[in-house]
Parts: sequence; structure tokens; C-alpha cells
Amino acid sequence: MASSRLFGGLTAKSSFLFGGARSYSALPNSSIPAAKKKYVPTSGTYPLGFKASGTIVGVKPGNTTKPDLAFIASDEPCAAAAVFTKNKFQAAPVTFSRDLLKSKENNNIRGVLVNSGCANAVTGKGGLEDAAAMAKAADKCVGGDGSTIVMSTGVIGQRLPLGNIITNVPKAHESLGSNHDHWMAAARAICTTDTFPKLISKKFRLPSSPSIEYKIAGMTKGAGMIHPNMATLLGIIATDAPIAPDVLPSLLKGAVDKSFNSITIDGDTSTNDTVALLANGAAGGAPISSTSSQDFITFQKVLTDFSTELAQLIVRDGEGATKFVTIRVVESVSEEAARKIASTIARSPLVKTALYGKDANWGRILCATGYALISEPGMPANDVPEVVPEKTNVSFIPTDGSKELKLLSNGEPEMVDEERAAEILELEDLEILVRLGTGDKQATYWTCDYSHEYITINGDYRT
Amino acid sequence: MASSRLFGGLTAKSSFLFGGARSYSALPNSSIPAAKKKYVPTSGTYPLGFKASGTIVGVKPGNTTKPDLAFIASDEPCAAAAVFTKNKFQAAPVTFSRDLLKSKENNNIRGVLVNSGCANAVTGKGGLEDAAAMAKAADKCVGGDGSTIVMSTGVIGQRLPLGNIITNVPKAHESLGSNHDHWMAAARAICTTDTFPKLISKKFRLPSSPSIEYKIAGMTKGAGMIHPNMATLLGIIATDAPIAPDVLPSLLKGAVDKSFNSITIDGDTSTNDTVALLANGAAGGAPISSTSSQDFITFQKVLTDFSTELAQLIVRDGEGATKFVTIRVVESVSEEAARKIASTIARSPLVKTALYGKDANWGRILCATGYALISEPGMPANDVPEVVPEKTNVSFIPTDGSKELKLLSNGEPEMVDEERAAEILELEDLEILVRLGTGDKQATYWTCDYSHEYITINGDYRT
Repeated sequence: MASSRLFGGLTAKSSFLFGGARSYSALPNSSIPAAKKKYVPTSGTYPLGFKASGTIVGVKPGNTTKPDLAFIASDEPCAAAAVFTKNKFQAAPVTFSRDLLKSKENNNIRGVLVNSGCANAVTGKGGLEDAAAMAKAADKCVGGDGSTIVMSTGVIGQRLPLGNIITNVPKAHESLGSNHDHWMAAARAICTTDTFPKLISKKFRLPSSPSIEYKIAGMTKGAGMIHPNMATLLGIIATDAPIAPDVLPSLLKGAVDKSFNSITIDGDTSTNDTVALLANGAAGGAPISSTSSQDFITFQKVLTDFSTELAQLIVRDGEGATKFVTIRVVESVSEEAARKIASTIARSPLVKTALYGKDANWGRILCATGYALISEPGMPANDVPEVVPEKTNVSFIPTDGSKELKLLSNGEPEMVDEERAAEILELEDLEILVRLGTGDKQATYWTCDYSHEYITINGDYRT
Repeated sequence: MASSRLFGGLTAKSSFLFGGARSYSALPNSSIPAAKKKYVPTSGTYPLGFKASGTIVGVKPGNTTKPDLAFIASDEPCAAAAVFTKNKFQAAPVTFSRDLLKSKENNNIRGVLVNSGCANAVTGKGGLEDAAAMAKAADKCVGGDGSTIVMSTGVIGQRLPLGNIITNVPKAHESLGSNHDHWMAAARAICTTDTFPKLISKKFRLPSSPSIEYKIAGMTKGAGMIHPNMATLLGIIATDAPIAPDVLPSLLKGAVDKSFNSITIDGDTSTNDTVALLANGAAGGAPISSTSSQDFITFQKVLTDFSTELAQLIVRDGEGATKFVTIRVVESVSEEAARKIASTIARSPLVKTALYGKDANWGRILCATGYALISEPGMPANDVPEVVPEKTNVSFIPTDGSKELKLLSNGEPEMVDEERAAEILELEDLEILVRLGTGDKQATYWTCDYSHEYITINGDYRT
């Protein structure tokens, strides 16, 4: 065993260091798996007044070819909000950025600086100083103290190579630009075990200013250690719509709960997760300042749909994933119960391996539904009125638009057309629909399967 | 794809039906993996007044060589208690046996009849009638109405081949015997994807009758869908100690919480789990009737240790497992928090794949510790006073008796001797010790790793 393998860098994702099916950073287009190319846009329309860049700084010693520092900057100070991991071991950039947004009251932010390759997590006081120094270097370039949010992703337990980063921040600033290639370079720079960069841009309109075409763009990364709240994921979303700082956090939280907090790859919630939203108002129009306004409601939907699309890209790139699975739990007494059941099905290793094996094993789906809400060991059994076996229905909804395939009807097994099930399971996308029959609330989760490659990526790097 | 594969029998454990690395029933001694032979006893001392048998009845159509019906019977009526799965989709034998024990007030039970190969789960009213008919056939043999507990394990969603079972119950009764081979035949008959039968027998004494040598024997099965509460596991424990029916349930519950409810293989809690305890008093002595007596306290410890040893055998036989891992969380504010953290580490796919890869990845252990107690998505963040990063310590405790290897001390990464870590991780057994530094409560969990074979067993049977 080479001496660097075990502790030269303890890793959140071992394959960062040791090579494997996935390399440390997103590859150039030519290396993106053929099946994933459709998720990588070749053009886009980006919000006014924002610029982006991706720069090679060598966070990892050997890296001289892949961008690993992303900079997203606004020409003018903007409103900003972020949602962070709830993990008790929060990385230094999480602590720094949370404090910053609090002290700035979600306003007067100029940009986001992100490095991949080192998570700056479990790095003590020194790590906090590093995060602050990184932000300060960016502040100098944009000309505003305390105006930069920082994020880091990668190896846990290592200090940042601060010199490499600080030295290159001016270069990252000089490289800023507003076209598709600039944004794509930034999207690439935040990747770790991702196999493709995840970038989306959209246009939208608000009721109060129908003549203005607003834009929203965002990028995200993440492929493993993915589970609410939240995941080894970073997300940065920028819009040129005018949004008051005090309504921005609730807009972001509303969107994240139904998107980034509704995906799971392996049930592990990381130390670094952050999704940030920046709104600079560069496109003009009336500011969104009331949570009851039509503009607020419209933008909430735009942002939720946008975030959902970004979050789904993470599931599409799940480590070792061969399937993209939507789990809808409907007719529930409460949304909370529906969420918990959907989440439990989504993270069940037996469901996930059955999906990999293309096995229509409703027994496992039912089993997960049946234990999702039960009490912890040692605690008395609870009632779980949300789940009544005789009212439970399970179906596969084919994603090619063809007819639903019923597996369980009111607690009784269906005689299933197995040829049909096989056809449905051959599709990359699948929807599992669980009707509880006990209420009218619902929740949706997105997940992928567990394959041999997941084990290889996360355990097998030494062979 | 052969037509029987998908729906000819929907399976809790697909490999039951389709073959794979594990066959449907425990194999003769000659086929037990060499590394597991040490866990299979070649002799034992069994409680007085109990007899056991294992009979081939052909629950699965093709089975003509492996015992698949176990019968454990007491010569005299005995006290009996059982702990059942909390899964909302409870199998028919669970419902039947729970009702029976309630109506008999935990007394006047004569035996346990168990079939493997079909779980009689999600089988509706017909399934309940099947469970009752199975019990009645045994009742006839032992001469007492309503005196037989039934259990089933195997395929979900199929009706029992009731004729095969009923016809063979008299044969199972005639085959009853009290020597080691009889008990081993029963232990084999309850196996499904297990690679070895799990049988333990012990002697013990009670303070009030120091001259009497009591005996306790038990068997269990289970290898996947293992997680509290409880698992695709069955357990049957018999003792010739005299225990009053009204104290038996609390004795069993106390033991199960620290044993069968403290193991996880894949985090999936099945529909059929049952552990039953029978006490016939055949060895004589004063009955244990008070929960505050010295005898009660002594027997509680005997039973907890015995159950722990049985439960650990299940982890040793975890599907695809290459490691046996003890997770101890100490210095916690509460036992409940310690349990939850230990359970979260034990089921983290990233921890389990790192163990498989022999990677001393404390970042993943820490990550799981950090998210174990956080609130659900959509709920406000909670305080989690049990986990304070600056007070957290993580170590490997080598199971060869050599010195502890510190990985994290008071939240700061240790400079770890990687050669030493590699040595420790080469051992099959490992203990992960997490010291929270916030209290004096603790909990212990046992788990195994995730390997390629787990994926193969649970997903890959079709290739």
C-alpha cells in the first residue's frame, strides 16, 4: 500500500485521491459519458450583470489541467441567501458564509468563490481563517469588504492549499465573463466525482413587469454522500430579477425543500452542503418585496422548478447509477408522512439493488413503506395511521407515457403482466407510485439505484 | 427472461428463487464456507423437556433435500413470550402468533412451528387462515388446542403450499428429539439465504437454586433485510428455567433491545421478524416471578448475553459481508442518542463501503455522527447538544488486543500511523469507538460492510 493512500488525505469521496471509475474533477466535454451529454447544454442565456469564470489553481497538487476554482460575481451588490447543511460537523466555509449573510442581512453581496478538491472541513480554527482569507482575496478584486460567499468541496480533514488559491484569485477575477463558456467553466470547476458539469439557464417573466424578460442561471455539483439535509452538493443560482433581501431566504428555503432536499443517492448527509441564491435586479422592474405578491408567488414557482431541475441532474449523475427513479407517495394524511415514506423507499438498499437488477420487487417497496414511520427500537410501537395495508396501492408508472402497471391493489397482490414489467424496467427512467388511500397530501423524491460501480467507487480504489 | 423470474414469486430476498451466490436454504456442513465453520457447534447441551426437529416438506416446489420445517416442542405446557416486527405490513404468522400469546396470557404454549421458503406475508385473509391451519396441525400432534406459535420466512406475496406442510406436521412431530442433531436440523430448517445454521446452547445458574444447572438454547436466521425493529430474522430461544408468564415479556424485550435490535445489515426492517422465548421450568427450582428478584436480574443478563451472541451470528452471515464491526458510542447525554448515532454510522453506505475497501476514512464516520440527530428536511434545525465537534473523539479499537488507534481527538484530526491502520483493517473484526464527551450514557451496535457481493445477491440474479 502506498503511504499516501490512507492518510495522505482522508477523503469524503475516496476516489478523489485514488483514482477509479471517476476522476477528481469533471472532464472536458469529450470525456463526458455519451448517455449524459444530453444533460450538458451547449448554449444558454445568462442573467444580466453577472459574470463567471473557472480557473486552474491546483488545489490538488497534481492538478494542472482542470479548473478547480469557480468565481461568480455580480457587477453591483446584490441580495443573497443560502441554505446550509444541518450536519453538526459543519465545514469552515459553511460557518463563514452563514455568519457573513447574517451580518450583511442578506444584502450587499458581490459574489461566490468556490474551490473543489478540498472541503476545508474538520480543519479547526485554521480552517476558518483559510475560509476568511479566501473571501478576502475575492473582496479585494470586486472592491467590497465582506461581500464574498465561499464554498469548498472535496477531501475532509485537510487544510486548503491557501497560497495556490489566493495567488490565483486575481486571475479568476480577470477571467470573468458573461457568455456560455464562462458559465460552463465555472460549472466544471466545482465538480468532484461528477461525470458531467451541471448548468441550467432559463428565462421567465413576472406579472408586475410583463415586458421584462428575466433570466435565472445556476450550477450544482454532487454525486455521492447525497441525502437531505443536504448532500455533498453545492448549488449557486443567480437571477437578474429584483428581489428584496428579506424575502430571499424564504424563497430559497421553499424551493430547496422540494428540490435539493428531496433527492437521495446514498442517505449520507455531508458536511459542506450549500445552495446560494443571488439576485442583483440588473434587469429592472419592481422589486419583489412582499411574500403575498403575485410576483413572489410566480418567482417561487420559477425557482422551485429551476431548483428541481438542477437537483435532478445530481441524481442523474449518482455514483454508479443506472436508473433515475421518481418516487411519488400520494393520498397521505400529511405531507410530512408522505415525505418520510418516499425518502425511506428511496434510500432502501433492497429497493435500490432490485431496481439495478430490474426486478419488479414490490415486496421491498411495501416493506419500506411499512417501516418508514415506525418508532425507534426500545420505544413503544406507534400507531402510524398514515399506512393501512388494506388501503395501500403500488404501481409502476412507465415514463414512456404508456399505461400504469399495478403491482398491489388495496393490499392485495396483482397478477402482474411480467413481460410488461420487464419492458418498463428496461427504461432508464421509472416512477414508483404509492397511493396510501388515507388522505390527500403527497410528496415526491428522486433517487437512483445501487450498482456494483457504487461499491467500486466508494470502496474498491485500492485494488 | 424466464417467466417465473419476475412474478412467479415476488421475493423478499430474490436469491431465494433465482439462485446466486447463496442458495435458498442452509447447506449441509460440507458446504458451509470454511471461514464460518467455527460458528457452527458440533455439540451442545439442551434444555430439559424440549425437543426439536427439522423436516423436508417441500415449501418450495423443487426442494427435496433440505429441511424447511422446524418444530420445537415442550413436553409440558410452558410460558412463552415473543417480540414482533413493528413493520405495518405484518405477515400472517406474526398476526396469528401475537393474538395467540395475548389470548393465552403468555402461558400454556407447547411449541413453535416454522417454515422457510415462503413468508406468508401480504397474503390477505387466506394467509391468516393458512397460519391458523399450520398451528392447528401442530396442536393436534401435541394434544392441546391453541398451543403452537407459528413463524414463516421467505418469499413475500405468495400463499403457503399448505397441503405440503399440513401433511408433514405429524412426521415433524415424530422426528422430534433432544440431542444436538435434532436441534441442528431445526436450526437448518429455518434458514433462507443464510450460509450457515445459527444455533447456540449454554448453561447457567440462578441465585435462588445454586444446585441446579439450567440450560438455554436458541436458534436464529437472517442475512439480509436486517435492521431494527427488527429484521428478516427469526429467533427461537428455549430454557428449562421456571419463569412466570407475566415477567417473560419484559425479560425478552430487555434482551432483544440490546441484541437483535442493535444489529443492522442493510437498514431494511422486514415484515416477518419474530423472536420467541419459551420457558418450561423442567429443570425445577423456584419460579422467577418478581422483576426485582436476584433471579430475574441474573436471568436478564443471561438472556441478554445469549441473545447478543445469537444476533451477532446474523451479522457474521450478513449478505456479502467481509467484516464484523462493533460500533460503540460512549459519553453520550442519553442512551437514545448514543443508539441513534451508532445506528446511523452502522447503516451509512459510505462507512460500509469504506470498511469493505479497508479505508480508515474517519471523515465518513464523523459525517454520519454529525447528521444522525438532525431534523428532517423541511423541519427547523435542532440543537443536538449530544454532539459537540470540539469534544468528539473517534478511534479504532483493534480486536487483537493491541493498542487503540486514535483518528480524531477533540475534533482535531490525528496524524495517523497508516501502517498501523492497515494492520487493524486487515482483521475481520473491528471496533469503531466514538467518544462524544458530553455525558455518561452509551450504546453498542453491530454491523457488517457492503461489498460487491451484496449487490450481486440482491440485484444481479438475472445475469
